[in-house]
Amino acid sequence: MRVPLLNCDMGESFGNWHLGLDEQAMPYVDCANIACGFHASDPDVMRRTVALAIAHDVRIGAHPGYPDLVGFGRRSLACSAAEVENLMLYQIGALEGMCRAEGGRVSYVKPHGALYNDMARDPELLRAAMGAIVRYDRELPLLVMSTADPAPARALAEELGVTLWFETFADRAYDADGHLVSRRQPGAVHHARETIVAQAVTLARGEALTASDGSALTLAADTLCVHGDNAESVAAVKAIREAFQALEEA
Amino acid sequence: MRVPLLNCDMGESFGNWHLGLDEQAMPYVDCANIACGFHASDPDVMRRTVALAIAHDVRIGAHPGYPDLVGFGRRSLACSAAEVENLMLYQIGALEGMCRAEGGRVSYVKPHGALYNDMARDPELLRAAMGAIVRYDRELPLLVMSTADPAPARALAEELGVTLWFETFADRAYDADGHLVSRRQPGAVHHARETIVAQAVTLARGEALTASDGSALTLAADTLCVHGDNAESVAAVKAIREAFQALEEA
Amino acid sequence: MRVPLLNCDMGESFGNWHLGLDEQAMPYVDCANIACGFHASDPDVMRRTVALAIAHDVRIGAHPGYPDLVGFGRRSLACSAAEVENLMLYQIGALEGMCRAEGGRVSYVKPHGALYNDMARDPELLRAAMGAIVRYDRELPLLVMSTADPAPARALAEELGVTLWFETFADRAYDADGHLVSRRQPGAVHHARETIVAQAVTLARGEALTASDGSALTLAADTLCVHGDNAESVAAVKAIREAFQALEEA
Amino acid sequence: MRVPLLNCDMGESFGNWHLGLDEQAMPYVDCANIACGFHASDPDVMRRTVALAIAHDVRIGAHPGYPDLVGFGRRSLACSAAEVENLMLYQIGALEGMCRAEGGRVSYVKPHGALYNDMARDPELLRAAMGAIVRYDRELPLLVMSTADPAPARALAEELGVTLWFETFADRAYDADGHLVSRRQPGAVHHARETIVAQAVTLARGEALTASDGSALTLAADTLCVHGDNAESVAAVKAIREAFQALEEA
Repeated sequence: MRVPLLNCDMGESFGNWHLGLDEQAMPYVDCANIACGFHASDPDVMRRTVALAIAHDVRIGAHPGYPDLVGFGRRSLACSAAEVENLMLYQIGALEGMCRAEGGRVSYVKPHGALYNDMARDPELLRAAMGAIVRYDRELPLLVMSTADPAPARALAEELGVTLWFETFADRAYDADGHLVSRRQPGAVHHARETIVAQAVTLARGEALTASDGSALTLAADTLCVHGDNAESVAAVKAIREAFQALEEA
Repeated sequence: MRVPLLNCDMGESFGNWHLGLDEQAMPYVDCANIACGFHASDPDVMRRTVALAIAHDVRIGAHPGYPDLVGFGRRSLACSAAEVENLMLYQIGALEGMCRAEGGRVSYVKPHGALYNDMARDPELLRAAMGAIVRYDRELPLLVMSTADPAPARALAEELGVTLWFETFADRAYDADGHLVSRRQPGAVHHARETIVAQAVTLARGEALTASDGSALTLAADTLCVHGDNAESVAAVKAIREAFQALEEA
Repeated sequence: MRVPLLNCDMGESFGNWHLGLDEQAMPYVDCANIACGFHASDPDVMRRTVALAIAHDVRIGAHPGYPDLVGFGRRSLACSAAEVENLMLYQIGALEGMCRAEGGRVSYVKPHGALYNDMARDPELLRAAMGAIVRYDRELPLLVMSTADPAPARALAEELGVTLWFETFADRAYDADGHLVSRRQPGAVHHARETIVAQAVTLARGEALTASDGSALTLAADTLCVHGDNAESVAAVKAIREAFQALEEA
Repeated sequence: MRVPLLNCDMGESFGNWHLGLDEQAMPYVDCANIACGFHASDPDVMRRTVALAIAHDVRIGAHPGYPDLVGFGRRSLACSAAEVENLMLYQIGALEGMCRAEGGRVSYVKPHGALYNDMARDPELLRAAMGAIVRYDRELPLLVMSTADPAPARALAEELGVTLWFETFADRAYDADGHLVSRRQPGAVHHARETIVAQAVTLARGEALTASDGSALTLAADTLCVHGDNAESVAAVKAIREAFQALEEA
């Protein structure tokens, strides 16, 4: 049984400001989405984070975002497709520079925040993100949101020759279309560790989740997004990792 | 006879702001020092400039600077050696991302403005710049200011295994130590095209310049810095190129 | 007869990058919309531009934009209403600092680029912009796009106690709703100076324009936007000024 | 007896990054040095911090820094005197915008970090800082480092008509010239709360400290710098406040 890769945002400190428990979460994840300086991070934080990932034998992913430090890359910025392609190339390359210095390499790409969401809504931006990968290194998988209908993204990826990794969440409720329920709705975020682990295991087994309207929802789950923001979320990562090890050994 | 390579700062536009006659100067230079987004440029300008250099078969150099757009990288920023190493790695990598997209590669590194000058004054920063290259790709030559005493830089480069390209200027007066005469002094900048071409040819022939105190000054001249800021400086580049072709054919 | 005030974007240089013919346009305008450092300008450019406006007895307007130098404030950024209010307060205050240093003051506010357009589309952002003015100085007029239906903006302004100046354009075609025809459409921008002057005079007289569908369009025209980007646009400003003087003397 | 005003850096969060226990420290201080967006903070953080200071009836000081978020304004940037004057005017004005929105006003100015230190070393920069105040509002006191020889700063302030507040530290060792002992030296920073309170009381009484070479050092102490970084430093602020209240009541 092949369980989803655990991916986690890392290296989101900036200058004098610290964010995230990277050292504590790194041992339990497979993939570190490393911020590239546009929505968070700076060259020094990037270098340290790359070194930490390599020390734990964790795959390094570029985590490019919109140029918006104040908004942490969470505010949509109306970029053209060409601008998105270029800001991704810039950030992937910058992270690769750090990887080369530490003896590693960029292994995949996960756009961040509003860029990730905009790309899920706008096929032109998804094409631009894929274009950046095709131009940079066609072998790099692109993480995209797993939904009930992966066909359009798959078709585009096939056309351009890009590998997709469909990403799922263990701590969020889904609607029937496979979109995350808005955080403004009650029940949108799972807080109980058992609920989170149970959803992770369901996704790993390829079984159906129960969507917010009660319907069954089956999602492709190449990877699962976990969080290292605080002690509680790190404990959840560890619990998911243990549950996945049990699955793999079963 | 091997004449100095002509290097020129390129890609110093930024967003809506245009600077430099890149299209006009590119045909006459050997090496394009391409700004990397910290003192000038942005991902879109970088992509266009890389494409232009490749179209003219011009070598692409990373031109990293301090993070200071307002000051155009011309104001010293008191960075630590580690910070200098990392901001260079970041910028070299970012430019490499653009090069990969266009089918080219970074071929050398020339630090910009205050970083270039600080590096010439402070051996720790010079070591940091070399460290960035050693970590990224030891084959990339580093451009440094040619002076009357190249021994210290050569010793450090040999210790670290880095190739240096000594850079000279055809439009500036030198003092006896081989430092540029401050722009505040009369006669610091040559404006007459014949004077500029004559100094370029003297440097290319390996002959001695006359320093500001009248003494003879011989400078290593792997490369010569030229400018594409305006029509006059582009005309000077073209004149130097023609003089160099005459030298090579002689 | 009270002709529209001529307003012009000014102070859009940034560091080493120059933009606009401020010195040439300033003598002919009534109002200088001075960039405040978020989409263009820096403290030095702002100081110089404020001094220039004061020297020509031109009213100084704050011209706040989204924090997006690369995009020149022309790309929508999904800010909350509170963020818009605060970024406007920050920029108005910053410009006021420069005005105090030069013995002037901020006299009105014109949001820039995408912020101006977003505010025209989204009543919550318009309310936020008005809120910034109410909080800062209720006496400062706010420039808004004049359209065929000024009632909603007027109602909101009345509710909050803010003065509106409706802004029109002499070099752009309008549709029947009083929106600018998209630049992508043929005929969207008037290039002939006579056409521009004629439209300015029509607006000044309070007469109807012919909209793109042939219908008559009457617009409130407290102010008219002119441009100092290049020699041609400065010549148009001068021609409009002369036409307006003729109107006033008639 | 007039004890020194307690001043504390506040509002040094930035976007998604939190820093400092402003809410906990604010009740015990007299003066909040509020970051203005160049080395830390953003319009939203500034607004909140201004409101917090007003709620606690704490004087608001502008805390302008070099434009260097990554370096938190702690790295010297080689600005000209005119650039320093303008970046201070910009930041003071921006903070005033926030104050007006909340019904307060800027009451003094304390330059931050490297700017503060550079100003102490370079009379031209000190003059520039004073120039910003003269231009903006001559009534605003300027905080400067108290040293054994306050005469030069006093002479300059008198010449320009600026009020100085000499600032001291309770948690740092001084050398015989009244400069802070470098943090790299042992004993440079006092950690024991009693030592810190004792030094604060000595300064408040106008008595001599013992400098690092054993000599007696008397310092003008209009104000004392305290810190709200963590629970320990907040506890020290509270202890100093209580000691000062005892002094005032004695």
